Amino acid sequence: MKTVHVGILGLGTVGAGTAETLLTQFDLIKARTGMELVLKKAADLNLDRDFGFDVPEGVLTTDAQEVLMDPDIQIVVELIGGTTIAKTFILKAFEQKKSVVTANKALLAEHGKELINAAETAGVDLFFEAAVAGGIPIIKSLREGLVANPIRRICGIMNGTCNYILTRMEREDVAFEDVLQQAQDLGYAEADPTLDVDGWDTAHKAVILSQLAFGVPLSFEQVPVSGIRGIQGLDVKNAADLGYRIKLLAMLDRSEQGYSVSVQPVLIPMSHMLANVDLSFNAVLVDGDVVDETLYYGKGAGRLPTASAVVADIVDAARDVLGDSHARIPLTWTADPRPAWIPPAERRERSYLRLSLRDQPGTLAKVTDVLGRHGISITALVQHEAHEQHDVVPVVLLTGDAPVGALEQALRELSELDEVGPEQIRYRVEELA
Amino acid sequence: MKTVHVGILGLGTVGAGTAETLLTQFDLIKARTGMELVLKKAADLNLDRDFGFDVPEGVLTTDAQEVLMDPDIQIVVELIGGTTIAKTFILKAFEQKKSVVTANKALLAEHGKELINAAETAGVDLFFEAAVAGGIPIIKSLREGLVANPIRRICGIMNGTCNYILTRMEREDVAFEDVLQQAQDLGYAEADPTLDVDGWDTAHKAVILSQLAFGVPLSFEQVPVSGIRGIQGLDVKNAADLGYRIKLLAMLDRSEQGYSVSVQPVLIPMSHMLANVDLSFNAVLVDGDVVDETLYYGKGAGRLPTASAVVADIVDAARDVLGDSHARIPLTWTADPRPAWIPPAERRERSYLRLSLRDQPGTLAKVTDVLGRHGISITALVQHEAHEQHDVVPVVLLTGDAPVGALEQALRELSELDEVGPEQIRYRVEELA
Repeated sequence: MKTVHVGILGLGTVGAGTAETLLTQFDLIKARTGMELVLKKAADLNLDRDFGFDVPEGVLTTDAQEVLMDPDIQIVVELIGGTTIAKTFILKAFEQKKSVVTANKALLAEHGKELINAAETAGVDLFFEAAVAGGIPIIKSLREGLVANPIRRICGIMNGTCNYILTRMEREDVAFEDVLQQAQDLGYAEADPTLDVDGWDTAHKAVILSQLAFGVPLSFEQVPVSGIRGIQGLDVKNAADLGYRIKLLAMLDRSEQGYSVSVQPVLIPMSHMLANVDLSFNAVLVDGDVVDETLYYGKGAGRLPTASAVVADIVDAARDVLGDSHARIPLTWTADPRPAWIPPAERRERSYLRLSLRDQPGTLAKVTDVLGRHGISITALVQHEAHEQHDVVPVVLLTGDAPVGALEQALRELSELDEVGPEQIRYRVEELA
Repeated sequence: MKTVHVGILGLGTVGAGTAETLLTQFDLIKARTGMELVLKKAADLNLDRDFGFDVPEGVLTTDAQEVLMDPDIQIVVELIGGTTIAKTFILKAFEQKKSVVTANKALLAEHGKELINAAETAGVDLFFEAAVAGGIPIIKSLREGLVANPIRRICGIMNGTCNYILTRMEREDVAFEDVLQQAQDLGYAEADPTLDVDGWDTAHKAVILSQLAFGVPLSFEQVPVSGIRGIQGLDVKNAADLGYRIKLLAMLDRSEQGYSVSVQPVLIPMSHMLANVDLSFNAVLVDGDVVDETLYYGKGAGRLPTASAVVADIVDAARDVLGDSHARIPLTWTADPRPAWIPPAERRERSYLRLSLRDQPGTLAKVTDVLGRHGISITALVQHEAHEQHDVVPVVLLTGDAPVGALEQALRELSELDEVGPEQIRYRVEELA
C-alpha cells in the first residue's frame, strides 16, 4: 500500500474539519485511490479544547516547525489564514520540498505570483481548491474539466454571508443592519463583517479565478469592488417588481475588446438559476466557448464542506508525490495574445437607477436629456404618484448599456440639477443570457 | 514541447465537434497544459460531406484500422456509438496499448466491467466524462473533487430531450405527443425516441454514476426504469397547483439499509434548483457526507458541449501517457463493506396518486381504508366537484412514504373496487431536502 504523510498548520474551523475528514474517511479514500493518507502532525497554538473527534496520540503539537521540518511529511496543509505567518510557513514548506494545500484566498490574491514562483522553483505542488467557493470543485472544473474552453464569462455568488443577508432581506422585508446583526448573533457573520459585506472576500476569489480563466496576472488593486452595505429594502423590492433579484456577484467578462473583472451588487432575472441560489449557498456560472453555460453550486464555507475540497487537493498532491509528477497541471498559464484589461470606466453595463425628483413639470425631461447626452437609453421607467407630504418622488429607471464612466458622469451632472434630490442609487443589471 | 497524437473513430455530431475543438483550441490547450495534442487520424465511413471546418490533409480516412494500428497514436477516441463495433474497436485499441476516451454510455452501462478489466490488463486509461451529462464535468467532480465523500444521494436530470418536452408541456400546456413531434421536427429528438423518452438513456448514465458513487457493480437490468411517455398535461398541472414540477430523474440513494437506483418521473418542489433546470439543460445534484449538497449544471448534449468533455478527457489521458502514469486514478473501486442493494419493491417513496372515483357516498372512505391497511398515509387530497355529465371524479392524493411494493399492491386492490375507475396514475414525490 502506498502511504503519504500529511501535516496540518492551523486547527481552526477548516483545519479541524480537515483533520476529522482525513481520519474518518481514511478507509474510503484508501478504497477509492489506493493510497493511505496518514495525518502525522497537526499544529495549533491553542490545543486546550475539544475538537469533537479523537486525534491519535502524538499528532497534536503547538510547534509549527514540527510539521515543517518532519522529513516524513510530504504535504503541508496551511489553514492558518492571513497574509503574514501563513506566507512564511508556506515558503518554508516549499524550501523543504513539501507540496502545499491551502484555502487562503487573501494570500493567493495578494501574493499568488510569489507563491507560485516559489512552488515552481522547489518543484512541488500548490493546490487551493478550497480558496474559492468552499466545497464546490470549481478550480478543478476550470483547470481540467473545461481545459478546452476559452472562457467568456464567470459570474459567481461566492460569499455566503452576503447571500444570506440578501436572501433574508428579500424574503422577510427586513433591513440590512437587522439581518447583519442576527447573522452575527448566529455566527454566520464575523464580528467585523467588512471582509464579507464590503465585497473584499469575493474580490479575492475573483482575482484567483481571473488568472485561471484568462491567463493574465491581475492585481487585486485593479478590481473595482462594491459590497452590499447600504442596500435598502426599497431597492430589493423595486428589483423584485421589475422581475429581478439583487445578488453580490463577481463578474469576469472577456470579449474581443479585452477582459474585465468587478465585484458589485447586480440585478439578475428571477428566473435565472443564479437568482435561485439562496441563503449561504454559493454558485459559480462558467460560460465557455465550447461548452456554453455551466454552473456549479454548493456550500461555499463551513467546517466540513471546505474540508471536502482541502482533502481532494491532498489526494491530488499525494498522487503527484507518489508519481513524482509535481506540477503535472501547470500552476499557472499565460494567454498568447494576452487579452487587454478594460478599465472599469470603459466597461459597458446596464443600470438600475433610483433618483429622487422634485414633483414639478419638466423634471423628467431634464433627467432624460442628461442621460441622452451621455448615450444612455432608458428601457424601463417607474414613477409612482407623490404622497401629499413630499415634494420629491422616487423614480426608478432601467437603462440600456453604456460605459460605466458615462453613467457616473451623468449621475454627477444630475446631482447638480435643482430638480434632483441628493440620494442616487445605481446598480448593475445583467440578463445573463 | 511534449506532443501526444490522437486518433478519432467516428465523425458524427460529437466526433466532428471533437476534431474541430482539438484543431481550433490547439494553441489554448498548449498554453494551459504545455502539451501539443495532434489529431493524426480521424476515421468515418462517410467522408463525403462538409464538416464545417478545415481538416488538415491526410487526417481523414475511411479505415478504422489506420487509427487503431498507427504506432504514433497513443489515444483513441471512440465516438461511433452502439455496443457492437465500438466495443470491438475499443478492445483492439487496448491490445495496441492505446488509451481510450469514449462518450458511449450504453456500452459502458452494459459492458463497463469488461472494458475496465481490459484497460487494466493493458495498463492504459479509459476515460468517459462525456458519457454522463455531456459537457458538465460530473465524472471528474465525483471521482476527484468529492473523493473524500461517502455519497448519500445523486439526483440527475440527464436527458435533454425529456427535459425539453416536460418544460414545454408545463409552460405551454401542450400534450406530450405534440411536443415530441415538434422536437423531432426541430432535430431535438430522434426519429425513434424510445431511448430518450422511455428512460433508457438516463438509466445508462445512472448505472455509470452508481458504480462511481457507491463502489458496487450494478447491472443495467436491476434498475427500475420508467420514462415520460404518457405523462398527461393534467398531471403536470396538478403538480404545479401543489407546488411541484415533474422531472425525469435518475435517483441514486444510499442509507444505512443499503442503496437503490431508479429512473422515473418525480414531482420535486418548484423552488428547488433542479426544478428550475429548463429545456435541454442537464443538472446533477450530488449530496456527500462531507460536502453536503452540490449541483452541476450545463448542456448535456450537442456537438461542442460534449466535445468539451471529450477533449478534457484527452488532456487527462495525454498527461498519463507523458507521465507514464496510466490509471493514476483507479478506473473503478470497491466499497468495503459493500452496501446492500435495496430491491425496488422495498424502496420507500412518497407518491402522487390520481384516481377516478365514482361520485357516491363512502367511496373515499373505501380508498383511504385500502391505503391505510398498507401503511400509506395521506398528506394532501384534492377533489373538485364533479361535472354533471360525469359520474366519476378525479381525486389527487399525496401520500407519506411507503415501500413501493405496498403502494403497488394497494393500487391493485383499489382497481378491483367497483367505486374506482380504471385509470390510475402514480408518480414519486421528493422534497429533496
